[in-house]
Amino acid sequence: MLLGQIANTNARWISERLAAVGVDVLHHQAVGDNVPRIVETLRTAMGRADVVIVTGGLGPTEDDLTRDAIAQLLDLEMVRHPEIEELLRDTFAGYGRGDMPLINLRQADVPEGMRYIAPVRGTAPGLVSTLPDGKRIYAVPGVPAEMQEMMEATILPELAVLAGPATIVSRTLRSASLGESRVAERLRDLFEGSSNPSVAYLASSSEVKVRLTAKAETRERAEAMLAPLAAEVQARLADALFTVDDEELEEALGRLLRADGRTLACAESLTGGGVGERITSVAGASDYFVGSAVVYTAEAKRRVLGVSRETLEGPGVVSEACALEMAAGARRLFGADLGLALTGAAGPEPHAGAEPGTVWVAVDAEDVRHARRLHVPGERSRVRRWAEQAGLDLVRRYLEGLSLSGPDR
Amino acid sequence: MLLGQIANTNARWISERLAAVGVDVLHHQAVGDNVPRIVETLRTAMGRADVVIVTGGLGPTEDDLTRDAIAQLLDLEMVRHPEIEELLRDTFAGYGRGDMPLINLRQADVPEGMRYIAPVRGTAPGLVSTLPDGKRIYAVPGVPAEMQEMMEATILPELAVLAGPATIVSRTLRSASLGESRVAERLRDLFEGSSNPSVAYLASSSEVKVRLTAKAETRERAEAMLAPLAAEVQARLADALFTVDDEELEEALGRLLRADGRTLACAESLTGGGVGERITSVAGASDYFVGSAVVYTAEAKRRVLGVSRETLEGPGVVSEACALEMAAGARRLFGADLGLALTGAAGPEPHAGAEPGTVWVAVDAEDVRHARRLHVPGERSRVRRWAEQAGLDLVRRYLEGLSLSGPDR
Repeated sequence: MLLGQIANTNARWISERLAAVGVDVLHHQAVGDNVPRIVETLRTAMGRADVVIVTGGLGPTEDDLTRDAIAQLLDLEMVRHPEIEELLRDTFAGYGRGDMPLINLRQADVPEGMRYIAPVRGTAPGLVSTLPDGKRIYAVPGVPAEMQEMMEATILPELAVLAGPATIVSRTLRSASLGESRVAERLRDLFEGSSNPSVAYLASSSEVKVRLTAKAETRERAEAMLAPLAAEVQARLADALFTVDDEELEEALGRLLRADGRTLACAESLTGGGVGERITSVAGASDYFVGSAVVYTAEAKRRVLGVSRETLEGPGVVSEACALEMAAGARRLFGADLGLALTGAAGPEPHAGAEPGTVWVAVDAEDVRHARRLHVPGERSRVRRWAEQAGLDLVRRYLEGLSLSGPDR
Repeated sequence: MLLGQIANTNARWISERLAAVGVDVLHHQAVGDNVPRIVETLRTAMGRADVVIVTGGLGPTEDDLTRDAIAQLLDLEMVRHPEIEELLRDTFAGYGRGDMPLINLRQADVPEGMRYIAPVRGTAPGLVSTLPDGKRIYAVPGVPAEMQEMMEATILPELAVLAGPATIVSRTLRSASLGESRVAERLRDLFEGSSNPSVAYLASSSEVKVRLTAKAETRERAEAMLAPLAAEVQARLADALFTVDDEELEEALGRLLRADGRTLACAESLTGGGVGERITSVAGASDYFVGSAVVYTAEAKRRVLGVSRETLEGPGVVSEACALEMAAGARRLFGADLGLALTGAAGPEPHAGAEPGTVWVAVDAEDVRHARRLHVPGERSRVRRWAEQAGLDLVRRYLEGLSLSGPDR
């Protein structure tokens, strides 16, 4: 993890589960396989929290040092437990891999006076210590399945009792067409001085998520705290929101198409298939998505989608006319109800006379024929990602009966 | 992050890059949006490391508290920089989104005496402080692209100098068609007991990267240490390697197509446009890539690519016959030299009589007409990603004149 070869997905999983039982997570720490550094890290953690959960370092090898570090931190002797030894031998016999390597016996060592949690899947027992001041240390294996088993069967139930009758509920509202500072500007006063419910803005490459979180004694009460706030946020962000339920934009679009009983086809140039890829990442998309014509050259636009010579030789491939003809062409080619087209200059070089970042998106259906231009600063991948968002959001706005020009960024 | 809604991928990225310039990473910490806790976390970090890198909390909103926490930690006044203010206004003007929201001015505040790093992509400047004892704090935005830009242009070069006259040179060889344990099996003895050069296997969702790293006083010496090792690895992994130069598979394929002067068109079903998206992520792909017909329904396969009724009603859409007709159809539709087709059941449900994970990839050209079946266990996104890899690798093998059946997994 410290070499950057894997991400700390255990911290994420544990934090999510702790939030669900009403435990506030204040810190994550990662440390290497080194006893003094682990001891110091545990001491820091114990100094600022009531409960510390340690993952990893309980295996049989030389670099599994968590047991030793805990024993040193709490100044405890190590005691070998014969009943764990027996359990280890039984588990190995069950694997049918011959005798247990002697090195595995280290896993039967428990710092004096600590409880242990017997493993079901793996061979490493978990460890539990309740200190005189009531603070607790839990140590569980680093293998996700083994960690999860002990968290679910033992640790989460114990901590839920400690946390008392409290639940944390979150709702995430997402917008693809407003920048983070615009969102903050509209919502700011709602949250000044309030920590429960709380709000967080998460800006990713091409969206803003507004996450509302409430903590209360029951789920019902937490939800009741969130409801008026969510309604107010919804009123202020209005049609810039594509979901109040943490869906991906492509999921929201699929939901609308399915409800409408209409089908969609795309024509993609600068996105190269990225829009189709996203729409089909949702299982069951074939109910409303027919296909996409990725037409990367001018000749392909003419040949496959019937874009006219006049357009190609006049305004060119990055133009309103080309986007509109592509959208109509996709609708015709695939026999779909709606056509969405995307064309532009992704960069880094200008393309067909257009500066990098120039994008046209167009939608075509029986009752609409509309194109919109945007300029996306930044590098190729960013331009492509924003183009996808703008295209998907244009169809979303059409299906929701909103103004197609969209809100100010 | 502390609510478990996202994983700490920035810590991973930064750690990987620091390792590459010879910097040892000792700890990761995560902390919430709370000034006293951030200050205490920074103090802990400064107490145990020479350099501390902080990500996030530099944005314009209420919960962006890193500036304030650093100022408090180091007991500095906050000073508003007019030149940053100007830069912010220019950036906003470039977005064409109207006036800059006033809230953004917070980003022009810099704790007194700190250097700042001007942003290129985003609006948040980075911050740098060198303390009297030589320790350093770097603060960078949490948005990955903005963080990476500052790490690459400013922080990694500075830290490489601090790390001393040792150069670390890495070479990454990549394979899309051998599992991690097969790679390890073939290479294991090469690396036993050697820590310089060192080897790491990084298995991602659908590839294995073998990274060879040597540390020496000069780049030349490090490269001389790597050369014979890289040659041996290359000999052992042979045609399973698609690059010895850390290219993406779509880059390697583009290089081969360009060298050959041939063009490619695709027909995609289960990947939904993902293959086109990847090929066109490489700038200049229009030199060799014409387009992709994403045909997500049986009817679209017939209508757009001319897949025969016999095939659709007989073996069905997940079959060798369908893959071959799709590849030929794409080549014909786009007038390309090569056609690549992908069809299968991505899951979670069986599709057209095929179990989830069943995939056919086919290549069609004047001198080849070949289909290959694979079975990919796992969830929808994994099946789609492996299908893309298998399709791109099939064309790569054809262009390199290798056996099209590929090595054993």
